[in-house]
Amino acid sequence: MAEILKGAPVVAALNEEMAREVESLKSIGIVPTLAIVRVGEREDDIAYERGAMKRCEKVGVEVKQVLLPGDCSEDALISTLQDLNNNSKVHGVLLFRPLPKYMDDDRVRNTLSPEKDIDGITDLSLAGVFVGTNTGYAPCTAQACMEILDYYGIDLNGKKAVVVGRSLVVGKPAAMMLIGKNATVTVCHTRTVDMPAVCREGEILIVSAGRPKIMDKSYLAPGQTVIDVGIHVLVDGSMCGDVDFDAAEGIVGAVTPVPGGVGTVTTSVLVKHVVQAAKKVAS
Amino acid sequence: MAEILKGAPVVAALNEEMAREVESLKSIGIVPTLAIVRVGEREDDIAYERGAMKRCEKVGVEVKQVLLPGDCSEDALISTLQDLNNNSKVHGVLLFRPLPKYMDDDRVRNTLSPEKDIDGITDLSLAGVFVGTNTGYAPCTAQACMEILDYYGIDLNGKKAVVVGRSLVVGKPAAMMLIGKNATVTVCHTRTVDMPAVCREGEILIVSAGRPKIMDKSYLAPGQTVIDVGIHVLVDGSMCGDVDFDAAEGIVGAVTPVPGGVGTVTTSVLVKHVVQAAKKVAS
Repeated sequence: MAEILKGAPVVAALNEEMAREVESLKSIGIVPTLAIVRVGEREDDIAYERGAMKRCEKVGVEVKQVLLPGDCSEDALISTLQDLNNNSKVHGVLLFRPLPKYMDDDRVRNTLSPEKDIDGITDLSLAGVFVGTNTGYAPCTAQACMEILDYYGIDLNGKKAVVVGRSLVVGKPAAMMLIGKNATVTVCHTRTVDMPAVCREGEILIVSAGRPKIMDKSYLAPGQTVIDVGIHVLVDGSMCGDVDFDAAEGIVGAVTPVPGGVGTVTTSVLVKHVVQAAKKVAS
Repeated sequence: MAEILKGAPVVAALNEEMAREVESLKSIGIVPTLAIVRVGEREDDIAYERGAMKRCEKVGVEVKQVLLPGDCSEDALISTLQDLNNNSKVHGVLLFRPLPKYMDDDRVRNTLSPEKDIDGITDLSLAGVFVGTNTGYAPCTAQACMEILDYYGIDLNGKKAVVVGRSLVVGKPAAMMLIGKNATVTVCHTRTVDMPAVCREGEILIVSAGRPKIMDKSYLAPGQTVIDVGIHVLVDGSMCGDVDFDAAEGIVGAVTPVPGGVGTVTTSVLVKHVVQAAKKVAS
C-alpha cells in the first residue's frame, strides 16, 4: 500500500514556523497583513477566502477583506489595487481570478506590485519563477506541491518528473521549480500522445489535469510519488482529485489524498508568502 | 542518410520578408535601427557583431555601434542603456553578455525597455515567453530553433521533444515555445540520469549542451529531427556542434549542420525582431 502524503503535518510545520516569524515581526511593530480582493460572490472564492482567513488567524496574520460588486468597472478594480500597492500596512494581496470577462486580465494583474504578489499572478513574479530571481512569489499551488515533496524528503535530484498540465498556476511553474531541483522534467498536456505511457515513466508525477479521477491505473507505476492537484466535488457530494486514489493506493509508492493534500498546503504557502513579504519590508 | 536542415534557405526566406518590411517602413519615414552595445573587445562578441551588421545591411536595417571600454562602470553602462531607451530612432538594442564580473547583471539587463529587448534578456521579455504574452522578444537562439522547425515543416503537435540544456538563452525558452506548439517536452541537463536513453525517446531533439560532439550515436535514434545549437572551434580550426554530425547523419531523420545551421538563423531572428519593434512603433 502506498504511503499517504497527507497535507496536515506539512501545514502544522508551516504554521509553527509562521507563528514564530509573526511573533518576531510583531515585536518590532510589524503586523503581517493580507488583503483579499474579491469581485462578486463566486462560491469557490468564498470557500477559499474562508480557509485563508482561518489559516491567517491561526498564525497571527491580519486579513483585510476588500469586496467589489460583480459588475464593478475595470478601473475601479485597478484603483483598488493601486491603493493596496500604496498601503504600507498591507504586505500581500490575493486577487481572485478569473476576473469578469469584460476586464483585461493582463492589465489588471500586472497592476499589482510584484513585492505584494503573494500568489504569483504578475508577469514579474512569473519571470522570477522562470529566471530563478527573487522577484515576487511563485503561484501558491505549484509551490505547495514542492513543499509536500520537501517535507516528506522526496529526493528530486536526477529523478524523472512528469507534470500533467501546462497552466501558469501549476504546470509551468511546477516544471520550472522541479528543473531548479535538478529533476529531469517532462510536461504533458491535452495534446500529448499516449499520456499513460509518458506518465508511467515518471518517478514523480504532479497532476493538474482538471478532470476527476482521469489518472487511472494505466497512468501509474510502482514506486512513483504522485502529487494530485485536482479538487472535484462529485454529484454525491464527495470529493476527489485528478487521480483515481483507490487505484493509486494499490500501485504507487506514495500519493497525496484529496481532500487533505495539496489544497490545504496551498493556503499555508499563501500565509508563508505574506510573512515573507512582511519580513522583506522589515529588513 | 539524414536530411540536412541548412540554415541558408531559412535565412534567405527571412531576408526576403525583412527587406520587404523595411522598405515599407522606410516609405513612411521609419528606418529600423539596431543599437549594438559592446563592453570591451571580446573576440566572440566582435565576430557576432560583424555578422549582425552584415545581415542588417543586407535588408536595410541601420546599425548604431556603441562601444564601452572593458573597465567601464556599471552606472556608465546603465546610463548608455537609458539613453537608448529614450532614443526614438533606436528600435532594438543588443547588449553582449556576460558583462564584466563586477557588474550586477540583473540590474543592468532589466534597465533595457522590454519593447527594445530584441534578444530576450529582460525579465519581462522572459515572462512573455513563459506566460505567452506579447511583451518583449524571445531569446534569438531559442527562436532560431523554432524558425528552422517551422521552415522545414516539422510538425510538433503531440510530438515528443527533448531539450538538452536549461539555460535562459536556449533550454528554458525553447521548452516553453515547444509546449506552446503542443509538443510533449522533456528538459534534460547535467544532472539527468541516463541522458542517452532520454534523448533516444525524443522525436525532436534541441541540443544546447555546450560540449563538442557530446551527442554521439548512443543519444540518437532513427527518424529524429535534431537541432544542434552548439558551436565549437576545434584545435585544428574546424568547427563542430554539440552533436557528432557524422554519427547523426547515418542514424537520424534530419539534422542541422554546424556551421551553417542554427547560428546563421539566429542573426536573422535578431534582425526580424528589430523590424518587428520598428513596426510596433509605426502602428
